[in-house]
Amino acid sequence: MAGNSVTFQHWKDQCFNKCDFSKKGSVDEDISHIVSFINSHDRYFTTSSCSGRIILFDGAWDCQEVQKQNCSWLFVTHQKCHSEDVLASLEKSVGDTTFKFEPFVLHVQCKQLEDAQLLHTVAVNSGFRNSGITVGKKGKIMMAIRSTHCLEVPVSHKGTVLITDKYLDFLVRVSNQKMEENLKRIERFYECLQTALQPQEPRCTLKETADKKPVYRRRRKRTKDDSATDCCQAIKDHKESSEEETDCNLLFLS
Amino acid sequence: MAGNSVTFQHWKDQCFNKCDFSKKGSVDEDISHIVSFINSHDRYFTTSSCSGRIILFDGAWDCQEVQKQNCSWLFVTHQKCHSEDVLASLEKSVGDTTFKFEPFVLHVQCKQLEDAQLLHTVAVNSGFRNSGITVGKKGKIMMAIRSTHCLEVPVSHKGTVLITDKYLDFLVRVSNQKMEENLKRIERFYECLQTALQPQEPRCTLKETADKKPVYRRRRKRTKDDSATDCCQAIKDHKESSEEETDCNLLFLS
Repeated sequence: MAGNSVTFQHWKDQCFNKCDFSKKGSVDEDISHIVSFINSHDRYFTTSSCSGRIILFDGAWDCQEVQKQNCSWLFVTHQKCHSEDVLASLEKSVGDTTFKFEPFVLHVQCKQLEDAQLLHTVAVNSGFRNSGITVGKKGKIMMAIRSTHCLEVPVSHKGTVLITDKYLDFLVRVSNQKMEENLKRIERFYECLQTALQPQEPRCTLKETADKKPVYRRRRKRTKDDSATDCCQAIKDHKESSEEETDCNLLFLS
Repeated sequence: MAGNSVTFQHWKDQCFNKCDFSKKGSVDEDISHIVSFINSHDRYFTTSSCSGRIILFDGAWDCQEVQKQNCSWLFVTHQKCHSEDVLASLEKSVGDTTFKFEPFVLHVQCKQLEDAQLLHTVAVNSGFRNSGITVGKKGKIMMAIRSTHCLEVPVSHKGTVLITDKYLDFLVRVSNQKMEENLKRIERFYECLQTALQPQEPRCTLKETADKKPVYRRRRKRTKDDSATDCCQAIKDHKESSEEETDCNLLFLS
């Protein structure tokens, strides 16, 4: 069922040879070390990523994914932000605008199911409770690292702002707090990942990884603790959210 | 890796013999036919479910999952609602209150990985883009059907309401629209499920299913179309959300 070594390496090479189709066109700064670390392993490669963001987008409430290109992005940041900047962007609203905090999301193609299981355990243990594995018909094994840590607030309707400046200021404070918590989880995930996977070469950028064709080494045998989580008894001390996967770093579309 | 027939049936029997640990203590009306249909198949059983809900809960913004019992639920409905009822509940706020729409979520234990793959395809094709598979260390294969269709709005801080009645009225309208869309997706999921899995016996309630020990028949061989979705090329015309899994119908905790 799982792709063999040749097929997996072919997919990985193909991925690195493709363009980054995301709006941003590069890996977000706060997670570039994680993306590089994963891509330095012969059993994994990342296909899309977003470190987390605060956004304002203009569109209909029922704006569907296919119509997303018709939605207008009024404000996007991958860092904490100031309410004045959000407020200035909100003034450009002409439709139904939503203020959102979207947490870290990462899609990783895995060589075999056990590799995905290991990554799933690491993700859930780090607080990313909505993570899950997908097995495609061609044997592609994909792990989505997702959080339930969300904020989604309608702030204008048909161009008319529905909230006060003071309330927007409060929303920005809440989303900045969520951004901070998100970064903590990302670092927790990275630490767990380092424990679970032996580093294989000095860290380098994604571009360097693609250019250098690194010499991959075998992943260390997983310990009992690494694989100790059955998702249904996953740790219960984290709350997180959902996100779209097509906006930050998307290297692999087929 | 996957549990054999005896183990899976043992887990299924064990599940039906357990109490429903959810707050509500029963399967939500709008999805009871889906839960029964799935439980009538020998390769699947549901372990938790929620048809979707509109809630007001009181707690700290950083209220973690482990502290959830300390959060106070001011308002919960699995149907569309009236703003007057939400408003009356909001008056009871003493902490930081959040207004949320949470969509359909369903956890299904599957006999083998290919069964989970089939269910995953059905889920993604029906618009549940955040669905994913979990493989536990004891070989339990779990499919989580999740949506990205969310609304999460802070509405009070330290007992002080932050929004106007008019804005709350608007939020209720938006969440009622989301509830309608959620029901459409649930029905789409049920229709796809019926196409993918041959009905095995007349539909019955979960309790009847548990009592009767139904005669299971083999699932029909999947057609090419049934399994045609690789998640990464999943349909892009749906947008959905995230949720916690412990509140509506939770039959299976270990």
